[in-house]
Amino acid sequence: MFCKKRTLLCPPHLVLKSWHHHLATTLSLQNQKKSKGDEKFRVEKDTFGELKVPADRLYGAQTMRSVLNFPIGSIGERMPKPVVQAMGILKKACANVNKEFGMDANIADAVSCACDEVISGEYYTKGHFPLVIWQTGSGTQTNMNTNEVISNAAIKAMGGELGSKKPVHPNDHVNKSQSSNDTFPAASHISVALELNRRLIPAISYLRDALHCKAVEYKDIIKIGRTHLMDAVPMTLGQEFSGYAQQLTNGLARIDACLPRVYELALGGTAVGTGLNTPKGFAEKVSARIAELTKLPFVTAPNFFEALAARDAMVEVHGALNTIAVSLMKIANDIRFLGSGPRCGLGELSLPENEPGSSIMPGKVNPTQCESLTMICAQVMGNQVAVTVGGAFGHFELNVFKPLIVSNVLRSIRLLADGGVNFSKNCVEGIEPNHERIAKIMNESLMLVTALNPHIGYDKAASIAKTAHKNGTTLKQEAIKAGITEEQFKEWVDPKKMLGPK
Amino acid sequence: MFCKKRTLLCPPHLVLKSWHHHLATTLSLQNQKKSKGDEKFRVEKDTFGELKVPADRLYGAQTMRSVLNFPIGSIGERMPKPVVQAMGILKKACANVNKEFGMDANIADAVSCACDEVISGEYYTKGHFPLVIWQTGSGTQTNMNTNEVISNAAIKAMGGELGSKKPVHPNDHVNKSQSSNDTFPAASHISVALELNRRLIPAISYLRDALHCKAVEYKDIIKIGRTHLMDAVPMTLGQEFSGYAQQLTNGLARIDACLPRVYELALGGTAVGTGLNTPKGFAEKVSARIAELTKLPFVTAPNFFEALAARDAMVEVHGALNTIAVSLMKIANDIRFLGSGPRCGLGELSLPENEPGSSIMPGKVNPTQCESLTMICAQVMGNQVAVTVGGAFGHFELNVFKPLIVSNVLRSIRLLADGGVNFSKNCVEGIEPNHERIAKIMNESLMLVTALNPHIGYDKAASIAKTAHKNGTTLKQEAIKAGITEEQFKEWVDPKKMLGPK
Amino acid sequence: MFCKKRTLLCPPHLVLKSWHHHLATTLSLQNQKKSKGDEKFRVEKDTFGELKVPADRLYGAQTMRSVLNFPIGSIGERMPKPVVQAMGILKKACANVNKEFGMDANIADAVSCACDEVISGEYYTKGHFPLVIWQTGSGTQTNMNTNEVISNAAIKAMGGELGSKKPVHPNDHVNKSQSSNDTFPAASHISVALELNRRLIPAISYLRDALHCKAVEYKDIIKIGRTHLMDAVPMTLGQEFSGYAQQLTNGLARIDACLPRVYELALGGTAVGTGLNTPKGFAEKVSARIAELTKLPFVTAPNFFEALAARDAMVEVHGALNTIAVSLMKIANDIRFLGSGPRCGLGELSLPENEPGSSIMPGKVNPTQCESLTMICAQVMGNQVAVTVGGAFGHFELNVFKPLIVSNVLRSIRLLADGGVNFSKNCVEGIEPNHERIAKIMNESLMLVTALNPHIGYDKAASIAKTAHKNGTTLKQEAIKAGITEEQFKEWVDPKKMLGPK
Amino acid sequence: MFCKKRTLLCPPHLVLKSWHHHLATTLSLQNQKKSKGDEKFRVEKDTFGELKVPADRLYGAQTMRSVLNFPIGSIGERMPKPVVQAMGILKKACANVNKEFGMDANIADAVSCACDEVISGEYYTKGHFPLVIWQTGSGTQTNMNTNEVISNAAIKAMGGELGSKKPVHPNDHVNKSQSSNDTFPAASHISVALELNRRLIPAISYLRDALHCKAVEYKDIIKIGRTHLMDAVPMTLGQEFSGYAQQLTNGLARIDACLPRVYELALGGTAVGTGLNTPKGFAEKVSARIAELTKLPFVTAPNFFEALAARDAMVEVHGALNTIAVSLMKIANDIRFLGSGPRCGLGELSLPENEPGSSIMPGKVNPTQCESLTMICAQVMGNQVAVTVGGAFGHFELNVFKPLIVSNVLRSIRLLADGGVNFSKNCVEGIEPNHERIAKIMNESLMLVTALNPHIGYDKAASIAKTAHKNGTTLKQEAIKAGITEEQFKEWVDPKKMLGPK
Repeated sequence: MFCKKRTLLCPPHLVLKSWHHHLATTLSLQNQKKSKGDEKFRVEKDTFGELKVPADRLYGAQTMRSVLNFPIGSIGERMPKPVVQAMGILKKACANVNKEFGMDANIADAVSCACDEVISGEYYTKGHFPLVIWQTGSGTQTNMNTNEVISNAAIKAMGGELGSKKPVHPNDHVNKSQSSNDTFPAASHISVALELNRRLIPAISYLRDALHCKAVEYKDIIKIGRTHLMDAVPMTLGQEFSGYAQQLTNGLARIDACLPRVYELALGGTAVGTGLNTPKGFAEKVSARIAELTKLPFVTAPNFFEALAARDAMVEVHGALNTIAVSLMKIANDIRFLGSGPRCGLGELSLPENEPGSSIMPGKVNPTQCESLTMICAQVMGNQVAVTVGGAFGHFELNVFKPLIVSNVLRSIRLLADGGVNFSKNCVEGIEPNHERIAKIMNESLMLVTALNPHIGYDKAASIAKTAHKNGTTLKQEAIKAGITEEQFKEWVDPKKMLGPK
Repeated sequence: MFCKKRTLLCPPHLVLKSWHHHLATTLSLQNQKKSKGDEKFRVEKDTFGELKVPADRLYGAQTMRSVLNFPIGSIGERMPKPVVQAMGILKKACANVNKEFGMDANIADAVSCACDEVISGEYYTKGHFPLVIWQTGSGTQTNMNTNEVISNAAIKAMGGELGSKKPVHPNDHVNKSQSSNDTFPAASHISVALELNRRLIPAISYLRDALHCKAVEYKDIIKIGRTHLMDAVPMTLGQEFSGYAQQLTNGLARIDACLPRVYELALGGTAVGTGLNTPKGFAEKVSARIAELTKLPFVTAPNFFEALAARDAMVEVHGALNTIAVSLMKIANDIRFLGSGPRCGLGELSLPENEPGSSIMPGKVNPTQCESLTMICAQVMGNQVAVTVGGAFGHFELNVFKPLIVSNVLRSIRLLADGGVNFSKNCVEGIEPNHERIAKIMNESLMLVTALNPHIGYDKAASIAKTAHKNGTTLKQEAIKAGITEEQFKEWVDPKKMLGPK
Repeated sequence: MFCKKRTLLCPPHLVLKSWHHHLATTLSLQNQKKSKGDEKFRVEKDTFGELKVPADRLYGAQTMRSVLNFPIGSIGERMPKPVVQAMGILKKACANVNKEFGMDANIADAVSCACDEVISGEYYTKGHFPLVIWQTGSGTQTNMNTNEVISNAAIKAMGGELGSKKPVHPNDHVNKSQSSNDTFPAASHISVALELNRRLIPAISYLRDALHCKAVEYKDIIKIGRTHLMDAVPMTLGQEFSGYAQQLTNGLARIDACLPRVYELALGGTAVGTGLNTPKGFAEKVSARIAELTKLPFVTAPNFFEALAARDAMVEVHGALNTIAVSLMKIANDIRFLGSGPRCGLGELSLPENEPGSSIMPGKVNPTQCESLTMICAQVMGNQVAVTVGGAFGHFELNVFKPLIVSNVLRSIRLLADGGVNFSKNCVEGIEPNHERIAKIMNESLMLVTALNPHIGYDKAASIAKTAHKNGTTLKQEAIKAGITEEQFKEWVDPKKMLGPK
Repeated sequence: MFCKKRTLLCPPHLVLKSWHHHLATTLSLQNQKKSKGDEKFRVEKDTFGELKVPADRLYGAQTMRSVLNFPIGSIGERMPKPVVQAMGILKKACANVNKEFGMDANIADAVSCACDEVISGEYYTKGHFPLVIWQTGSGTQTNMNTNEVISNAAIKAMGGELGSKKPVHPNDHVNKSQSSNDTFPAASHISVALELNRRLIPAISYLRDALHCKAVEYKDIIKIGRTHLMDAVPMTLGQEFSGYAQQLTNGLARIDACLPRVYELALGGTAVGTGLNTPKGFAEKVSARIAELTKLPFVTAPNFFEALAARDAMVEVHGALNTIAVSLMKIANDIRFLGSGPRCGLGELSLPENEPGSSIMPGKVNPTQCESLTMICAQVMGNQVAVTVGGAFGHFELNVFKPLIVSNVLRSIRLLADGGVNFSKNCVEGIEPNHERIAKIMNESLMLVTALNPHIGYDKAASIAKTAHKNGTTLKQEAIKAGITEEQFKEWVDPKKMLGPK
């Protein structure tokens, strides 16, 4: 009885509130069956049967099926645009190579042309790629979405009827010599390589340069160093910023170190990696064509079985992204602590004032750019685990956490890139050092005592510092009491001489 | 020199490709300064000065400033809708209570009314809440966005001029007796409590019920149990599914166990938790009003300093979500392995066939619902780390990873809820056991030998099983060779008698 | 050819450097076969054959086999002692109940007695439990190690010959009505429940009490509050510490909320959860006996299939530990920042000086207790992922990440408990506030301006604060310029009146 | 009142059960003060005062202080041996270079000699390095432990009195031109570089070679491929194993890609990175000497501020370890699933039988090596988060999560290396394919239909496969019904021809 009634337990809002609401209800399965004549829809067909799709969309039955089967999350859950654009690139390359291998030139050219609007992102923006990340783990439905859109666009260009699959069939032509199992990983690598090269590397370089400029600009500002958060020996503000710049220089080297494996493409492996149904040489020609189209050195993967079954290169890349997040977290944290105050914090830096900081405390200004960036870094650290789990639990010939993995890698790239540039423009570039404050607290530090080590030994120096701390006196006062002459003190304890080896 | 030229290094696409592109370029800072007369905009003002905002939007200068300062990511990065709706709920409650404490009744009522369209989500959908997650870590700008929209909506309703802040001021009226520091955590708790109660609990219950029904339905199907993936002793398919149902029953108990701390609201703490600028009793009255509006037992947090400075309750809730993800990962993995085949896998279950499974292998059908759900679970495991890092690194009186934290908690809830219901409807409810296959392999298992332990001891039983394995014979054959009679064997080794204690 | 020679590639140090070096080489397989007469060894036997074990150890062939098969890591990788002790508890309970169900009383009593030295930890300390975590994922070998040690100890007590399995057989008597599949999860729950109750809860309570005492002690010390690291409105140091205490009070509630599921025992489920080979009532009696022995309210799990196949209760508990780590990270970070200096930091607190802080900077003292604790918290956050991954990827009737899971849960408990008490004793209890410094910077803060909001409105108040910041003047100076009288200022802007609602 | 009594709440077992119990109670602070004459102890001194240390230990007061201040965890929590050995290497190199720069040759040589037994691990094994990971976050106390042990060993060798600091002072001689702040990161890099080169790379190569040999051995065994766990097109077992071997070949490339930054040493940076108190050229000479001693290409870090303040290189290395864990998880999972059975699983492989698998099911054998390895992989995934959190939250001039970070990196290396070799020896090398079973299920697969695509198109092929599935018939039967001739079928659908491009 309990079991009979249970469908009543289904909270209607769960379906209703979905992002696919409109689509899913308009095109409900009931409708699918009853009123085929409706003008707003056309009928598409796949091996499971007929299905109505919106008349103004280029996708077909398999895409529609996925829309109905996976009403999950809101618009933020869509398959990322760069994946779809990369799909366009590889479909174009395959069409070009298939033509070489004998595909009807008209069809091949029509497919190739149709790809251009996938590549530009136009079709994505216009809603022809409605699928979410949370579909099949192979990305098959996004591959089919691409096949359907391109075949319909080519059909249209050739004067055919949408959905007729003639003269351009989504599987037999657009997907020729391919499988979801090799196209989706290839699209992942292409999209990630492009985003790394076009977005992340320039962005991190940009921020690195800004930090480097500050390091140069601040090279003569002597300040207190802090270790364990406690007063330590002096250094320059420029030296401090040079460390930040070096972290990002290393970050760029980390990306570079991963790229060789990102440039390896699974294309040519088809269903399980054997290359079944491809002509010999197809794989190499396609990779070469993609390299041409993207101006990046893509090559055929050395082992297709690895390339389909594992997503290790993506896990590796995210390890580098994670390390960059670690670097940025450190930098942003330092900057906001150094800028804390204005009167009750460290107060060494003034950060740009970008907006009112409080809805209740008038005049408050906060390090919001640091906060935005540190939140991004925390997200990237989380994404690392999602990518790791997804990468680890593929089975046999195919990893089926692919949309999860690529979407996290792309999101991390985008957030780090946008966040990094933004942090540079709206924070780093406008930082002003508070010269007076910096000098004042540096001169009060007891750790200048370290300069006495070579002259009087560690133990005596420690005793001087501890006494000054206890008595609230200066180092100099206690040093003189301990038998050092004023001249010696001046000679030995000079912050300017403490900034490097002798 | 290098430093002079560096702005040239800025890759233009980084800005151009941003989601905020249109807005940010249309309203570029240059425009802000030059052509104030433009009809599409009106001028809004905050303590930083004037700023143009789109004429058809209700938000003001602070929101606009945040749009310009944080052009990060695509539309998926928007502050989640449930947070904004919760903001509407609490602003309404505050307006009601402020009226009790003497705020002008007309103003208070206008504010209260204006909140309704925030609560309904109408204003969010229509673009009045454009801010991203990656803003200030306190959510101040989303609080101000809400204040601005509500004050302008109230001003409009009262016949005033948008942006005039008269008669309804965003800070002095809408934000009265509040701070971002107590409203944003309160909105987090309200939104999470609502989403848990309205979305997750019904969804998990729904899936649990489906699994429970299967457990009942399959109670007499005897199958092989598997431990270490290896053949073990028999059990029923119903027993196997009862374990899954129990996992989710426990998952629901885990959510329940967290809720008391989610129901604690920071409202009344204002800036640092002292309750400065609130009248005595305000906190308790507001919580009571929110309880009334939401029908959930919200109360005032026992310690405002904890409630502002920490986000532990969110970390705790995500720990429960993480545990549910662990449960679902296990269940979905089991089901896809049991359904693997159709001819070369375990083949005990047939899962519903929802769509063509391959772009190259005709007729292939895959466990796509399991794949979707397991990807979701991996995402939730990643979100756990993001929430943990965000929760751990608040400083002093305020955690400033709040938008990160709440957006991850809400995303995990949404994905688990939608994924869970979808998995139930499109997979679990349609599972069919393959009776023949189940019976066949169960009867072949050597582990039925375990039933001999009490009769002949572990060592002899082991010897029988190992010999049968080595010789490729049946247990019975070897048992008889070892001196057991056929009758004894039949009596002792009966799968039906191996399903429970005696 | 390459394949023939490959064993040469095996770096000898990999084996040699192992922790098991001595044991594994002494007892190498060659020796196993050749010189059986050696006095230092006796021969033990299992279903795989004979094996030599050290004469002075109580374990048998299966334990020895695991020692030889899993030479992984150093001594830190041993199965944790509390697991072995819990194994002792449950073996004792089973022996007692088996006696009730008819097991020979002499044998049952000998087994029960032998368990006592397992429970005390004596046998663990003396090397009778040499196995590592990285064995079979079911913990079978630790179950067998326990069975072997107890049976040999009982045999010895009864005057039998070690290794003869007479009169006490490790499987037929010690393991009677049990399986590794139900004993290991039960031992996990027992050990975790004991460690939570005896170690973590007292430790966190102890630290919480110390923080609470400080909150009381500091209740009248007015200080600046900080939000976004920036100066905010005043509060008391006691209020700040009360937040920390509340975090831990909540942490204790979080542990309590998990305990009901930790008290559920898998015992009685045997091999796959059916309870095969147990008499009816066995499960309930054993749980009751364990409750008696431990004085904790253990009960039989409501569903054995869940209890064997999933480790969700452990994932849940670790979620609570993770939340406690988040709390402690926050508290320890705050305390070290507030204690930073002594001259160039915030300097509000003086932390106890426990040791010299630097090998080069004389007189330096560092917040080492905070550092120890924050490192521990980071470890716990990592362990959370290990436990999550282990919990998620069990298959079918048995999770086989069990030793991984329980060892991480126990390590997190131990580190948090020891770290928490240590942090309390060596840091929190000795904290001294620097009254002068606290008062000085609080009085300089511009955010006292917030108190003017109700009198002159947010916008005017903001203008005063911003002008004072710009001019480097005091709030009072600018307020008077803005038309507020000195008396009003004194009346309105009084930190003492800003510590709560009015 | 509550506060007065609170020390009573301290559970005595918390202290008593500690690993340091004996030491801590024997040397309790009371004892420290009262009975100085005790023969088992000698008195050591640091800048905090006198302290008794065990007479037979070489360490001094600072080490003793840390033992007393950090009684955390059991013996598994000790600072890992490779760190201490690396400390020995760098102290030796420093002594050699200090001699060049004018340190008394007798002292320098005595220090250099004393280092040898630190390098060999002798002093670690004998208990001269008792400190735990959970000490100060800079590792200062381990640096001082090393300084103290070496100075005392050198004093002893030179005929001096232990603890006298004459003629060899731990700070002024052993630590000369160094700081904990540059030695501990350098020791981290040295130990990790050595462990990667000596342990991990050989181990992973070893396992990779074993997998490669299997790939060669199995190159002609045709089997079913599986995607989405479902039957797909055929491939060879050799191809499947070649993918595993490629994953590890890539893993080795990933380690190589990180090494350049691991070879960068912080030595010469001293306290905050300025190199204060070092002679010019010291840094480069020391790195060169270490390269000589270790035969690894160590160099001076390009920026000391980065090298002290960040631990990014360790986070990067762990990203590579995490990727290797992901690869091994995949491989071990595949192997255990392919070996599942023997009668109710996939049954394609027979794994070596290493031990009895069940305490209740006689004759059961389990894939225990896979389980051990997958648990290790899960631990490494957890360690990744610990390292990430530790790496991200350093502040200013010094990261103070260093012992946490290096201990996790070293543990991951050790576990992966030991686990990998063990998995190779006790599992991979002994795998036997079950030829009959493999051939049987491959021939039953419906996915051989894919070979028909180029001949009859995707849609028709799909229809044939679906009909065969529905009717329980063979592909051939349905293909003939669909109009394909028997000859065509034989010609087209030949698994041998489906293993590569044409």
